[in-house]
Amino acid sequence: MTGPVRQQAMRENNLGVVLRSIAEHGAVSRAAIAAATGLTKATVSSLVDELDRAGLVADGGAVGNVVGRPGQAVRLNPDGPVGVGLEINIDYLVCCVVDLAGHQRHLEVRLADNRTRPHGEVLDEAAELLAQGMRAAGRQPVAGLVAAVPGLVTAQRGALVAAPNLDWPELEVAEELTRRIGRSSPVVSVQNEANLAALGEFWFGGKPELADFIHVSGEIGIGAGVVVAGELFRGRHGFAGELGHVMVSVDGERCRCGALGCLEQVAGQEAILRAAGLPTTTGTSLGTPEGPLAQLVELARAEQSAAVSAIEQAGAALGVALAGMVNVLDPAAVVLGGMFAQLAPWLAGPVRAELDRRVLGARWTDLRVEVSRLGWEAAVRGAAGSVTRAIVRDPAEYLRGRTADIVAPWHCG
Amino acid sequence: MTGPVRQQAMRENNLGVVLRSIAEHGAVSRAAIAAATGLTKATVSSLVDELDRAGLVADGGAVGNVVGRPGQAVRLNPDGPVGVGLEINIDYLVCCVVDLAGHQRHLEVRLADNRTRPHGEVLDEAAELLAQGMRAAGRQPVAGLVAAVPGLVTAQRGALVAAPNLDWPELEVAEELTRRIGRSSPVVSVQNEANLAALGEFWFGGKPELADFIHVSGEIGIGAGVVVAGELFRGRHGFAGELGHVMVSVDGERCRCGALGCLEQVAGQEAILRAAGLPTTTGTSLGTPEGPLAQLVELARAEQSAAVSAIEQAGAALGVALAGMVNVLDPAAVVLGGMFAQLAPWLAGPVRAELDRRVLGARWTDLRVEVSRLGWEAAVRGAAGSVTRAIVRDPAEYLRGRTADIVAPWHCG
Repeated sequence: MTGPVRQQAMRENNLGVVLRSIAEHGAVSRAAIAAATGLTKATVSSLVDELDRAGLVADGGAVGNVVGRPGQAVRLNPDGPVGVGLEINIDYLVCCVVDLAGHQRHLEVRLADNRTRPHGEVLDEAAELLAQGMRAAGRQPVAGLVAAVPGLVTAQRGALVAAPNLDWPELEVAEELTRRIGRSSPVVSVQNEANLAALGEFWFGGKPELADFIHVSGEIGIGAGVVVAGELFRGRHGFAGELGHVMVSVDGERCRCGALGCLEQVAGQEAILRAAGLPTTTGTSLGTPEGPLAQLVELARAEQSAAVSAIEQAGAALGVALAGMVNVLDPAAVVLGGMFAQLAPWLAGPVRAELDRRVLGARWTDLRVEVSRLGWEAAVRGAAGSVTRAIVRDPAEYLRGRTADIVAPWHCG
Repeated sequence: MTGPVRQQAMRENNLGVVLRSIAEHGAVSRAAIAAATGLTKATVSSLVDELDRAGLVADGGAVGNVVGRPGQAVRLNPDGPVGVGLEINIDYLVCCVVDLAGHQRHLEVRLADNRTRPHGEVLDEAAELLAQGMRAAGRQPVAGLVAAVPGLVTAQRGALVAAPNLDWPELEVAEELTRRIGRSSPVVSVQNEANLAALGEFWFGGKPELADFIHVSGEIGIGAGVVVAGELFRGRHGFAGELGHVMVSVDGERCRCGALGCLEQVAGQEAILRAAGLPTTTGTSLGTPEGPLAQLVELARAEQSAAVSAIEQAGAALGVALAGMVNVLDPAAVVLGGMFAQLAPWLAGPVRAELDRRVLGARWTDLRVEVSRLGWEAAVRGAAGSVTRAIVRDPAEYLRGRTADIVAPWHCG
């Protein structure tokens, strides 16, 4: 609390307290919510009724209550509002739909080399995927649309200002997509894909206990998402987490960003494949069975030395860059995501070694190196999930119909 | 607001709202506080009376009120509680006293090479300085004692676990100092000196508008303090900001921390002095007139090439490390503190050049490179100020007499 508090604000606040309590407990009785939140049963009942009328909660069946008699439980409404997520990456597009309880209801992937075609064409296809996601939602209200993009996204306008790997011009992606899907839909919010991947892994990857971690998305580009005390850390302009452009080699190769010796040039997907003597083709990030990433994994499993040493060298460079980031941010864990999840059996060792060697506080902390469960799916899940998470966080804002604002947890500076 | 809100909590919250409003405005009438906070005049008067009885506010003279008639103003009480700050650094000790309004009431410095004597002796002298600070406070209540130390300090216990430059063992510094100054005094809190220097510069260095910045403390060691949205960023264990141990040269010299190529070995005070062909002696950090740091500055002013190039090389290395940190944290500014403030005329250029070259978002942000006003005084001012700032932030906690807890804004993880 930082400002003066009044009755209306208190009721709206408590609406969120109750909904979050339901989200935490699954199916739960009104009496148990009252006990958990410290609110009176009458207040809880009235708030639950309001949430029910808004379609946010549903009947959760019978549960034993505090005095042993069966009570009626409530839970998040699986047929309530949904979020639609989209990811535009270098070599694929993907769209998914997530409901209030976090379940994925729809997933569609398209492989395409988005570097070799005009950005207008990519945006057309992305809008088509979004429209399909909205149709897949059926009768459930679409509360928000969020797109993940591989580049710097401004906090204020959701504009993509730098995407070195796509080589796109400065572009109002949010506006472009909103225009394409039509005025009757909610506006599209845009966010950096590494940020959304961190949130996706946090929410849906079985890592709710981490709260303070760095999630590294290894794709053609390398980005990181930083979660601090359970919240996305975005920085002043929305540009935080650009791990791929941390220097790891003073006289290294020139990066697409213009600088020398960036991590991406040593540990990015194409750099690893080249070092292993493999081709670099479209759709590689997804590790499709016939693709070169799958081939690399197979060779490494067969202990082919070029493949293993390519991954290990990338791991050492990643470890050096991460050590700097850990020295600066002091998280509880580092999570290897994107293609790094698939390469973890050979990559995690060198990463760990550099962290142990270079992190000043390493001996006094139990820094964990974890592997992402969701891999490349993390960003799109995070995109869709950020909509439904925002509703649970602040139902009053959702009830005011401010769909464009419900992903506000991102906002910063 | 994240939890349920009730009446008592509301009054305590509003006590802080009123006190912070007074702190922001200087001398201000009750009517103006009511207008600024949205609270009723009756509520404001009652809360101001409570703050007055606690000695936190005082008569602020006559001011014009909203309808033009002269009203009675209140302001922070300059004769109210004070904070006592201490800094133990590698080559000096310093203590100061700061009042509620942020004015420094006492400052005492002692030069000493704290590496060459037993830590018990250093702590004895530090406790002596604290006792003198408390005596200097006179009749004003000492609300808290805070010590800045050059090393990793745990968030939970305030233990110094790693101080590579002092070469001290793991030490319960808070407990050691508390025991030495006696049971009747408030307990001593301990915090990393780079963190306190960032806060000191933020609060007292004329940079309140920054809110999101990295403050670099250049001394024998190099540390950084990260301020995000006006709050100190500490990390999960309290170890954030260890910029000195970020790698800047793959095959660089071995650092006291055990790793190779750390920034400290290229841009730390002794490294710069050595590169310039100057001796490294006690008290250098303070830039005392006869010391080698003052000599270095003099030589650089005379455009002596060894001196200038030693500083420029350090600046380039600092710029590379800071570029990584800016890529990851995306702040609004970088502040050159400690001895870097004195070296800024030659150092800031190379720092700026590396930031422009290596920060991915550089073209879309107006990243500022600022020079600390307080220099080496920032940490001790931040130490003392964190006590009085905590009172203004949460007067209810202070009124409960929980002096040990009032520096809680530090707490994390």
